Amino acid sequence: MLTPPPFPKSFASDNHAGVHPAVLAAIVEANTGDAPAYGGDAWTHTMENAFRAEFGAQATVYPMFNGTGANVVGLGLALRAYDAVLCPATAHINGSECGAAERVLGTKLIPLPTDDGKLTVGEIQGQLSALGNVQHSQPRVISISQVTECGTCYTADEISELAEFAHARGLFLHMDGARLANAAAELGCSMRALTTDAGVDLFSFGGTKNGAMGAEALVILNPELDAPALFLRKQGMQLASKMRYVSAQLTALLTGGLWRENAAHANAMAHRLADGVAGLPGVSLRYPVQSNAVFPVLPEKVIAELQQRYLFHIWDADENVARWVTSFDTTVEHVDTFVSDIRLAVCGAIDA
Amino acid sequence: MLTPPPFPKSFASDNHAGVHPAVLAAIVEANTGDAPAYGGDAWTHTMENAFRAEFGAQATVYPMFNGTGANVVGLGLALRAYDAVLCPATAHINGSECGAAERVLGTKLIPLPTDDGKLTVGEIQGQLSALGNVQHSQPRVISISQVTECGTCYTADEISELAEFAHARGLFLHMDGARLANAAAELGCSMRALTTDAGVDLFSFGGTKNGAMGAEALVILNPELDAPALFLRKQGMQLASKMRYVSAQLTALLTGGLWRENAAHANAMAHRLADGVAGLPGVSLRYPVQSNAVFPVLPEKVIAELQQRYLFHIWDADENVARWVTSFDTTVEHVDTFVSDIRLAVCGAIDA
Amino acid sequence: MLTPPPFPKSFASDNHAGVHPAVLAAIVEANTGDAPAYGGDAWTHTMENAFRAEFGAQATVYPMFNGTGANVVGLGLALRAYDAVLCPATAHINGSECGAAERVLGTKLIPLPTDDGKLTVGEIQGQLSALGNVQHSQPRVISISQVTECGTCYTADEISELAEFAHARGLFLHMDGARLANAAAELGCSMRALTTDAGVDLFSFGGTKNGAMGAEALVILNPELDAPALFLRKQGMQLASKMRYVSAQLTALLTGGLWRENAAHANAMAHRLADGVAGLPGVSLRYPVQSNAVFPVLPEKVIAELQQRYLFHIWDADENVARWVTSFDTTVEHVDTFVSDIRLAVCGAIDA
Amino acid sequence: MLTPPPFPKSFASDNHAGVHPAVLAAIVEANTGDAPAYGGDAWTHTMENAFRAEFGAQATVYPMFNGTGANVVGLGLALRAYDAVLCPATAHINGSECGAAERVLGTKLIPLPTDDGKLTVGEIQGQLSALGNVQHSQPRVISISQVTECGTCYTADEISELAEFAHARGLFLHMDGARLANAAAELGCSMRALTTDAGVDLFSFGGTKNGAMGAEALVILNPELDAPALFLRKQGMQLASKMRYVSAQLTALLTGGLWRENAAHANAMAHRLADGVAGLPGVSLRYPVQSNAVFPVLPEKVIAELQQRYLFHIWDADENVARWVTSFDTTVEHVDTFVSDIRLAVCGAIDA
Repeated sequence: MLTPPPFPKSFASDNHAGVHPAVLAAIVEANTGDAPAYGGDAWTHTMENAFRAEFGAQATVYPMFNGTGANVVGLGLALRAYDAVLCPATAHINGSECGAAERVLGTKLIPLPTDDGKLTVGEIQGQLSALGNVQHSQPRVISISQVTECGTCYTADEISELAEFAHARGLFLHMDGARLANAAAELGCSMRALTTDAGVDLFSFGGTKNGAMGAEALVILNPELDAPALFLRKQGMQLASKMRYVSAQLTALLTGGLWRENAAHANAMAHRLADGVAGLPGVSLRYPVQSNAVFPVLPEKVIAELQQRYLFHIWDADENVARWVTSFDTTVEHVDTFVSDIRLAVCGAIDA
Repeated sequence: MLTPPPFPKSFASDNHAGVHPAVLAAIVEANTGDAPAYGGDAWTHTMENAFRAEFGAQATVYPMFNGTGANVVGLGLALRAYDAVLCPATAHINGSECGAAERVLGTKLIPLPTDDGKLTVGEIQGQLSALGNVQHSQPRVISISQVTECGTCYTADEISELAEFAHARGLFLHMDGARLANAAAELGCSMRALTTDAGVDLFSFGGTKNGAMGAEALVILNPELDAPALFLRKQGMQLASKMRYVSAQLTALLTGGLWRENAAHANAMAHRLADGVAGLPGVSLRYPVQSNAVFPVLPEKVIAELQQRYLFHIWDADENVARWVTSFDTTVEHVDTFVSDIRLAVCGAIDA
Repeated sequence: MLTPPPFPKSFASDNHAGVHPAVLAAIVEANTGDAPAYGGDAWTHTMENAFRAEFGAQATVYPMFNGTGANVVGLGLALRAYDAVLCPATAHINGSECGAAERVLGTKLIPLPTDDGKLTVGEIQGQLSALGNVQHSQPRVISISQVTECGTCYTADEISELAEFAHARGLFLHMDGARLANAAAELGCSMRALTTDAGVDLFSFGGTKNGAMGAEALVILNPELDAPALFLRKQGMQLASKMRYVSAQLTALLTGGLWRENAAHANAMAHRLADGVAGLPGVSLRYPVQSNAVFPVLPEKVIAELQQRYLFHIWDADENVARWVTSFDTTVEHVDTFVSDIRLAVCGAIDA
Repeated sequence: MLTPPPFPKSFASDNHAGVHPAVLAAIVEANTGDAPAYGGDAWTHTMENAFRAEFGAQATVYPMFNGTGANVVGLGLALRAYDAVLCPATAHINGSECGAAERVLGTKLIPLPTDDGKLTVGEIQGQLSALGNVQHSQPRVISISQVTECGTCYTADEISELAEFAHARGLFLHMDGARLANAAAELGCSMRALTTDAGVDLFSFGGTKNGAMGAEALVILNPELDAPALFLRKQGMQLASKMRYVSAQLTALLTGGLWRENAAHANAMAHRLADGVAGLPGVSLRYPVQSNAVFPVLPEKVIAELQQRYLFHIWDADENVARWVTSFDTTVEHVDTFVSDIRLAVCGAIDA
């Protein structure tokens, strides 16, 4: 019999987790009297310095409310009215933002098939015959997710290759970095190595899934894209009036390597979970585990049984692929209990 | 000589204030383990009940990140592609949202002149000849601000009159209630009396200026407008993943009448400030004080001198109108010190 | 008793008229075998040369289907996502295009009051405090109509003043030239004097009201605005596949001064009509007659009686202002009969 | 040696052809004095009757300038702000309208792979898991092209199956009928059998490629979609002022079966062309010939040689697929000369 409710820990999403204590403390500490609104405050100034320290002196940073906002405002900086974005079909901007890019930017997204959420130069190349043809939206931005929606990571070299390819053709490279921290932790490198140093033009930085309450940011590395950012953030309904409370969260994550600590722990829990189910009969992994997500293929009956007690999403109902996500506050005990229950469910399915 | 820096208290905006302690406490208390994302949490459920208690059983409520988001998503529920919004020229949606409604909704705003920020049936009437004429955007929504951007309030009767007028012609009445609490406090009535009972179809509820950290809400009172709200909020980049922390703020304001306490205090401070400058030579009020804002006409030299030490905005540079805003944490001492400095500046201007 | 139906001639609009025989002949002559589509044909090449001859060597020209299309595509060339257009409240783009600019471009139109449809530097000036303020849409284009929707003309000097004012502030000057021909004919100058030489950046050229079947054009005089025109025309649904038949119409109008002949005749008929009703009791003119339109103020009863037999529009129902428009094929007899009937109606109204 | 220039006949597109004499005559005949603008004329009335006779009494019809306009305005009638269109990746709306649907409607297009341009229920099914999920654009319209961009036809039964599938799930079926006439001619049925009787909700009717000068139409068969059509056409920049000249073209095509005659002839020429190259070494057909287009796979060298004297497009450069299109005025001699030259080129390629 499985462990009874209450549900011990959600494996549905890293935004089911709460706020890291250090982030919460930073919010509380920011609550001291007046501060100018809309980013003219000291906390935002400190945060900007923290981003420049992390990503380089040319980085400009704009706090945003959520990832969709950061992605849409960012893409808007690089797109002309008749441009298109090349992205993986699995991209969050394509499948999980309810058409925000099309609605707010009026832009076309051109979704490309991938094996594992990672775009390749080969796939992109096939779209570039549209360049200069007035009948077609003009590919202008290549957008990748790091980590991908499949939990996989691009290496720094892979990103560099995409950036060089893009720049050689007058395109920009955009990154949805909702889980950039997880990628850097997994690859054992700095976040800068995967962005600034790899030639990324602009990216969304995700704080919320990394332990913040609600704090994302648009970071612009290519200065020629920066000019309209203040206007597009405001028009894009992402301008926080009491911005200090968003900025303080971001600073907390960038201070003392908290971002890496949180991400590395979440990743470790995912690996532990994947290791725990490895070799179980009828269980395999759809994608390699390279961050804080596991995509197991499971017997349908096992999925059904586990969902009675655990929160997690189905990635592909036709092929019985689930998605398990860990977070900064997932514990070894959470994972081990879950693994134990999975094992029970699998055995039960075999016995039946 | 004026009181030296540091600036004692901002009179620039009620969003220069921090977060009310009770709101901050509610956030901290919400930080307890996992919770479903995107509004499936207990805090959001509690908040929804609180809004229904305040505004009636038919009210549906959608937390939003900021006022622009609440306004744009709300208007989007009522507008067809070829519709227009009738609003005062001074409306926040018209002049302070960087064209978000036009960009995100593709809608036309038809700005109407007013004396004091308040729309009248007479002004609206003149626009309705466009109805049915295919060359014109079709007026579909009347949008008012309560309190107005001029700090004035509509009475419940005035709102009812607009609502009846609108409904008789197939139009909807929308309210930007960024400071609805201040209006209810000033008029000594419930917020419901100014919305549900007055026939408002939907409105933006402002928590941030009332003491929240960052919490607004779209409240729908006309059930026929509700269906697409979840989709438009997501597409409008206003869906908070860890929504509990937004919901908890809203609940805190609606609990024990905190919203009224905060608003009434801010209003009282504005009245005290207006009273304090009444009768000063060369000083008059551009609009009557009916909330937490004062719009004084001042000698240019006085404005310049005061701005060296106090933060406040200029409302009309050509006519030397300033804007002073008070908030839940403005104290009697803040006001009295400011009044004293104003008096000194005015006398100095006279002497010179 | 008034002349009985059939209606002798419409005074409702210059697009109630048919096609000038020379334009129709040009269409028929263009129907000779194959031609490349989308503007790669000889007729379009000839037309482009004709526009360059008329407006200067730097002019680029893009045939469009209608005036709304020409205006929207043109404005789109000059606007960034967060920009606004300053225009008279009476502008066709503001009141007669069903919100196309807001929908297609996502732009904000800022309508300004005028006495006679003509924008002045003074009115514009008041809007420029928004420049650089992130809360506001940024004024970027000044759009004027020549002739205005009130039938009045800007002099070349007035246009130059607006252009200089605009350029000194980084703005562009756009002209809706649906009746540019009428203005040039009225002012006795070239169309170039009112556009290229006056500093207009881009304008819509109207052929349809001048005797074409359906042929408008976007003309770009400021080369820095030209680059995206082909894409925006296509995306703006204004790219004619068999373009030769549109181009041939435009060429016909520009050949041998047909545009001026048609416009001058229409103007003369409007003046004759205005002269014919001058001094009638209870009849006055709302605007001076400076093109092919007359805006008479008439007794309500006279309007009603005339509308039983004549087609014309009401400009302002509250103030009993009608609009009478003449065209290239309005004859002296048409006008004199109409004048005679107006006189009868006015006398009848007096007698009654 | 190939036949020398001038190019004898374009095989690039059916819009390289001129205007059918009967259509031109109808235009000339319509040029008789005044007529109300914007569709209030007798020619438009007659045209509407002709469409009702062809497609059924419930059909409403709106002349449009071009196919992109007809598609975009039509789709706009069926889409809410958060909806998506399911269409083949090859669809004209997806690949040949420069992102007009995204820009003007703010909608998402979800392109689906096909073998031959024809959408199947199976492909659509996989997208419907998005229904009700607030993170996803909501599939609302299935859009098919008849004939497809690959020159293939849906049978009436195939269309019925798609319509039933769509309607059972609350979706609408839209058809881009730029070459609907060719499909009906090929299948030997009425156009009604492929639209009204098959359950199509609305479609674009193409006149231009069928021998008109420039005349398309949006036809609405599902009355619940009709209400906003006049507004969306105007806003969509597709409202012709002198509409009689567009309506007269459409009437001419629908009179005496001219549409079928023109389409059947063009189709016959395509079959003759395909037959003429059948069996040539190194030559095959990418898609079956089911209308007026042939998609031959040819040796690269043959393509290059033929393009020196003949106008035609390359469909797929990587796979050496060309596209040859015939039209109402392509003659047997044109085809036979072309076939002869193809044969020469193929033989030359073999010899070399």
